[in-house]
Amino acid sequence: MLRDNPLGDPADRDLYCYLPPGYDNSQARYPVIYFLTGFTGTGRSMLNFDPFAESMDARLDRLISSGEMPAAICVLPDCFTRLGGSQYMNSSATGRYEDYLIEEIVPLVDERLRTKAGRDHRGVTGKSSGGYGAMRLAMRQPQTFGALGTHAGDAYFAYCYLPDFPKFVTGIEQHGGVEKFFKHFVTLPKKTHEAMEVLNILAMAACYSPDPKMPMGIDLPVKLPSGEIRGDVWKRWEANDPVHMVREHADALKSMKKIYVDAGLRDEFNLQFGARIFCSRLDEIGVPYLHEEFDDNHMGISYRYDRSFVELGKALA
Amino acid sequence: MLRDNPLGDPADRDLYCYLPPGYDNSQARYPVIYFLTGFTGTGRSMLNFDPFAESMDARLDRLISSGEMPAAICVLPDCFTRLGGSQYMNSSATGRYEDYLIEEIVPLVDERLRTKAGRDHRGVTGKSSGGYGAMRLAMRQPQTFGALGTHAGDAYFAYCYLPDFPKFVTGIEQHGGVEKFFKHFVTLPKKTHEAMEVLNILAMAACYSPDPKMPMGIDLPVKLPSGEIRGDVWKRWEANDPVHMVREHADALKSMKKIYVDAGLRDEFNLQFGARIFCSRLDEIGVPYLHEEFDDNHMGISYRYDRSFVELGKALA
Amino acid sequence: MLRDNPLGDPADRDLYCYLPPGYDNSQARYPVIYFLTGFTGTGRSMLNFDPFAESMDARLDRLISSGEMPAAICVLPDCFTRLGGSQYMNSSATGRYEDYLIEEIVPLVDERLRTKAGRDHRGVTGKSSGGYGAMRLAMRQPQTFGALGTHAGDAYFAYCYLPDFPKFVTGIEQHGGVEKFFKHFVTLPKKTHEAMEVLNILAMAACYSPDPKMPMGIDLPVKLPSGEIRGDVWKRWEANDPVHMVREHADALKSMKKIYVDAGLRDEFNLQFGARIFCSRLDEIGVPYLHEEFDDNHMGISYRYDRSFVELGKALA
Amino acid sequence: MLRDNPLGDPADRDLYCYLPPGYDNSQARYPVIYFLTGFTGTGRSMLNFDPFAESMDARLDRLISSGEMPAAICVLPDCFTRLGGSQYMNSSATGRYEDYLIEEIVPLVDERLRTKAGRDHRGVTGKSSGGYGAMRLAMRQPQTFGALGTHAGDAYFAYCYLPDFPKFVTGIEQHGGVEKFFKHFVTLPKKTHEAMEVLNILAMAACYSPDPKMPMGIDLPVKLPSGEIRGDVWKRWEANDPVHMVREHADALKSMKKIYVDAGLRDEFNLQFGARIFCSRLDEIGVPYLHEEFDDNHMGISYRYDRSFVELGKALA
Repeated sequence: MLRDNPLGDPADRDLYCYLPPGYDNSQARYPVIYFLTGFTGTGRSMLNFDPFAESMDARLDRLISSGEMPAAICVLPDCFTRLGGSQYMNSSATGRYEDYLIEEIVPLVDERLRTKAGRDHRGVTGKSSGGYGAMRLAMRQPQTFGALGTHAGDAYFAYCYLPDFPKFVTGIEQHGGVEKFFKHFVTLPKKTHEAMEVLNILAMAACYSPDPKMPMGIDLPVKLPSGEIRGDVWKRWEANDPVHMVREHADALKSMKKIYVDAGLRDEFNLQFGARIFCSRLDEIGVPYLHEEFDDNHMGISYRYDRSFVELGKALA
Repeated sequence: MLRDNPLGDPADRDLYCYLPPGYDNSQARYPVIYFLTGFTGTGRSMLNFDPFAESMDARLDRLISSGEMPAAICVLPDCFTRLGGSQYMNSSATGRYEDYLIEEIVPLVDERLRTKAGRDHRGVTGKSSGGYGAMRLAMRQPQTFGALGTHAGDAYFAYCYLPDFPKFVTGIEQHGGVEKFFKHFVTLPKKTHEAMEVLNILAMAACYSPDPKMPMGIDLPVKLPSGEIRGDVWKRWEANDPVHMVREHADALKSMKKIYVDAGLRDEFNLQFGARIFCSRLDEIGVPYLHEEFDDNHMGISYRYDRSFVELGKALA
Repeated sequence: MLRDNPLGDPADRDLYCYLPPGYDNSQARYPVIYFLTGFTGTGRSMLNFDPFAESMDARLDRLISSGEMPAAICVLPDCFTRLGGSQYMNSSATGRYEDYLIEEIVPLVDERLRTKAGRDHRGVTGKSSGGYGAMRLAMRQPQTFGALGTHAGDAYFAYCYLPDFPKFVTGIEQHGGVEKFFKHFVTLPKKTHEAMEVLNILAMAACYSPDPKMPMGIDLPVKLPSGEIRGDVWKRWEANDPVHMVREHADALKSMKKIYVDAGLRDEFNLQFGARIFCSRLDEIGVPYLHEEFDDNHMGISYRYDRSFVELGKALA
Repeated sequence: MLRDNPLGDPADRDLYCYLPPGYDNSQARYPVIYFLTGFTGTGRSMLNFDPFAESMDARLDRLISSGEMPAAICVLPDCFTRLGGSQYMNSSATGRYEDYLIEEIVPLVDERLRTKAGRDHRGVTGKSSGGYGAMRLAMRQPQTFGALGTHAGDAYFAYCYLPDFPKFVTGIEQHGGVEKFFKHFVTLPKKTHEAMEVLNILAMAACYSPDPKMPMGIDLPVKLPSGEIRGDVWKRWEANDPVHMVREHADALKSMKKIYVDAGLRDEFNLQFGARIFCSRLDEIGVPYLHEEFDDNHMGISYRYDRSFVELGKALA
C-alpha cells in the first residue's frame, strides 16, 4: 500500500504487537486495541526504554494482571514519514496511510494473531497526532473500529496549529522556501526545537492541504513572506479538524461502544480546548463519552494511557 | 469628554508635552507629533527614568539638536483605563477616548501651545497598542492627522491576540468569570505575567466588542469554558483590525504625507506579520509607505522611536 | 565626596525625600528611614510611575495615615554608577559611596529637614543590592543607623553571584576583555538580559575586589578564559559577604533596635538562603531579628516594603 | 559484584556490545571502546530509537565503513541505580560500580568476544556523567584503560553542581527530608524537571559523600534548611572532582595514548569550563590532549560521539 509513496519512506515496516499474559498457553481469542503514536514517533520508538518510566508492555501486563482491564492484544502501527508523521491519513504528499492501516495492517493482524475479529472487538486510541488519528479513523472507519480513545489529540486547529504559523513563516523564510528548509532539516545533526516547530506545520500541510502542483506537493496555509492566512487552504485544513468532522460522521460516532477523551490542563498545544470542543460537538449529536482533564502538560503523559486502555478494554471484551 | 466613563477612570488627566529647544526664546510655531503609549502605559509612565536608557525628552533634544529632525512639539496623551488601556477608541465599556483625543486634547494643545495647527503639520505615532491607535486614528481622522507612524502596532488579530485566547479562557475560568477575575486582579499586589495576559484580552474585548448587556459590558470572543471562538464576536474584532480597515479608509491613507511602519523580527506578539500584511494592503490601494524590520523583539525598543520621529518630523515641518 | 570619582559619574545628584502627611503644618521632628534601591536603580527611578503599582509616596502615605506606621521621613539616596551601582561602598574602582552617604547625605538631611537626629531615630532598609547596602551600613556604621531592614538583600555570595560566573566569563570572552565589553555595553541601545548579567558581576568585582593595577581598576574573581575561580580574589569577596561580616560586627548588630529580614521563596538569586544564613549567624551571636519568607520571586516585590517600613518606623519613632 | 547493593538494584544486567562489520566472518581481534552513558541512562536506553537521529550502531557502522575509524568493538555498560546513576564509582550508598566494571565486565568481554585484550587496546569514553566516569576510570585504572574520551563530562563541581544546591534544598525541604523526597520521587508517574534536579544532587551526594550513619547512607553537602555549604562534605566532593584529581594521577594520565575532551559552548551545566580547567591541569603536568568546543548546549549532542570514537579508535587500533 505504501509502495512508491511520494517521500520515499519504506513500504515494508516492522509491526510491534503486544500479546497479553497467557496468550501462548491458550486458544483464546482477544480483542485488539490499536495504539497510534504521536508526531515524530514510530512503532519502535514507543518501545524506547526509560528506566524511570513504565514501558508499554509492562503497563499492559500490569493493567491486565491486576484485573483492571480484560486481556487484549495491542498493536503499535508505524505510520511515520520523513516529515515526522502522516496523521494516519491518505495524502498525495505523503502516502496512503489510512488505507495502509485499514486494508493492510488490520487484516494482517487478524490473520496472524488470535484476535476477536470484528469492529465490536477492535478499538483505536493514541496520543497527540495519534489521538487525532484515532478520532479520524473512528469517524471514517466505523466498520473497522468500535471504540475510540484520544489523549491530547490534535483538534481545534485554530488553537493547536495556527499559533505556530508565524514561527513557520519565519523558519521557511530563513531558508528560502519549503524545499530548501527541508533539505537543511534533513542534514541537521540535532533537530532543534525551532526546526521541529517548522517541520510540524509543514507536515500538517502535507497531510491537510497536499497539492501536486506545489513544491514538495504541499499547499501552504499562509502567504510568504507576509504570513497572511490563505482562506481557501485554511478551509481544507478545517475540513480535517475533528471538531468540524463530527456532524458529518454522527452515525459512526453513535455506533462507538465507548468514546474516551482527555487532555492536560496545561497542554502547550491547547489541546484541552480541542477536547472540550470535540465533546461539545458530541453533545450536540447526542453521543455519550467519557471526558477527563488532568493537571499536566502535553509531554510525558504516558501514565494517562491506562485510562483509555482500561475503558476500551472493557468495552471491547 | 471622559466624564462618567463606565470604568470610573479619572476624567481630568495630566497632559505631558515636550517643547523643542528654543521654544521659549522664539515666536515660532511648531508641528506637533502625538506619541501614543502601549498597553498599560500612561503619559506619565512614558517619562519613567531608566539610567541606562534615553528618556523621551533627551531623545527628542538629541534628534532636533543634531538636525536629524526638524523642531517639533511632542504630546504624550493619557488614555489609560483601569483595564490597562483604551486602544484610543470610543467604547461603551471603557469610555470615549477617540473623541477625547480629537475633540478635547488636540484643540487644547493648539490653544495653549504655539503649534502649526492643521492636519498637514500634525502627526500621530506610537508603539504597540499606541501604534494601533496611530493607525486607527490616521485612517479615521485624516482631517486631524496628516502623517502616521507605528512601531510594532497591534495588527492582524489572528496572530497577535488569538493565540492568547486559550490562556484567557483558563484565567477567567480559574476565577469564575470576568467580574471575579477583575475583582481579583485589582487586589493583586503584584500583577503577574499570567494575570496581565488575561487582562490584555479582556481589555481588547472591552474595546472591540463592548455590549452593555454583558458582565462588565463586555462581549467575549470565546465561549466559556470550551474556548470555542464565537464567529459573530470575532467579526466585530476583525472590523477593528487595521489590516481589515485599510480598504474602507483608502482615501484617508492616500492623504497621508508619510506612513512609517516597523516591527521587530522576533516580536512576541507576531506584530512583524501585522506590519507586513498592513503594508501589503497599502500596496493594494497604491499608497506609498516606509517599512522597516529590525532584529529585536517587542520589549525595550524605544530606540526605534527615532525613526518615526525623524520621518514624521520631516514630513510635517 | 564623589568629586573625581573614577567612573566619571556625577558628583552632584538630586536627592528625593518623602515628607509625611502634616509635615508642612507642624513643627514636629521625625525619624528618618533611608531606603536604598537595588542594582541599576537610582533615587529618581524609585519614583517611576506604574499605574498598576503603588508608588513609594502613596505607600508611605497609606501606611502612616492608617496608623500602621508612625510618621517618618524617607530618604531615597542615589548611589548609582555607570556600572549599575556601588553596593553603597567605598571602592577605588567606583567611588566613595559609603562616605558620601554617611558624611554628606545624612548631615545634609539633618540640616535641611526637621529630623529627629541621632542613630536611635535613623534606620536603613532596601531591596536587593539596597538590602545589601543596608546590612553593610548597619554593621559598619552603628553610630549612624539604629535599625536595619533588608528585602532580598545580596548575601551568601556562593549562591547569589557564583552561579553567574560562567555567564560572566562567556560574555567577557565574547568581547575580548572587560574594557571592550564595557565599551560595547555603553553603546547598546537596549541593555539585554545577557549583557546585564555580565555587567552585574563586573560591577560586583569593582566593589568587592578593586585593584588600580588592573583593567578598569577591577580584579576579577575568575581566570580567563578557563573560568577557574581565583581563591585569593574570592576571599576578598567573602570578606564583604554579610554572612561573613556578622561576627566581626557583633556589637553593632546587638545595638540595633530592630532587624527585619525577608526574601521570596523563589528568589532567582537564591537570596532566601542568604537571608536564612544571615539569620543563623545572628542566632550564633544572640541577636534577635524578625525573619519572613513569602511566596514570590525577586522581581516586583515592592509590596513587601510595607514590612520594613512598619517595623523600622515603630522601632525608630 | 553488585550482589546486595544498598539500593536493591539488580545485580544481573544485560550488557549490550556493538560488533564491527565483518566480525562474524573473520578471526580478527578488535580493540574495545567502553562508552559510558550519562545520568539516568542505562546500556539499553542508549539504544533507544529516534527516527530523526542516528543510532549508536548505525553511527559506528558508518564511521568504520567509511574508514574514518578502525574497526572496534563498543561496549555499553549498565551502571544505573535507582538514584539515576553511580558515577561509575564504588560507594557505600549505591554499590561497587567501579569494581563491577573493572573486575567483572571487562574480563567478561575479553572472555566472550575476540578482543585485543590489554590496556593499549582498550579505551573509555562517555557523555556527561559518563564523561566523568571515563575521566575517573582513566586516572584510577590505567592498567585497564589506555585512552580517554569525555564529552561534556562532569568537572569543576563549583560550576556544575553547586548552582543547583539551592533548588536541592528547596526540593528536600518541601518533602521533609531525603527519605521522604525519594519515597515521593519513586511514586511520581512523571519525573518532572524539578524533581530530576533534586535527584541529581542527591545521587551525587550518594556517590561523593556516602555515610552509613546518615539517612539513605548519604551525607549532604548543605545544611538544612539554611542551605549553607558544609565545608567538610564539600571537601569530600572536591576530592572526586576530575580537575582536583589530575595531579595525584599524573602518571596515569601521562600513560594515555590519547586524551580527547570536548563540551558545548552553551552547556547548561557549565561543563565547557570544567573541560577547560581539566585541560589547564593537564597542561600543568605536561600531558597532551585534544580539546574541542562546539556551538551547542548539553542535550542531544550524540553527533559529537563521532569525535571520541574516531580519536580513540585510531589510538587503540
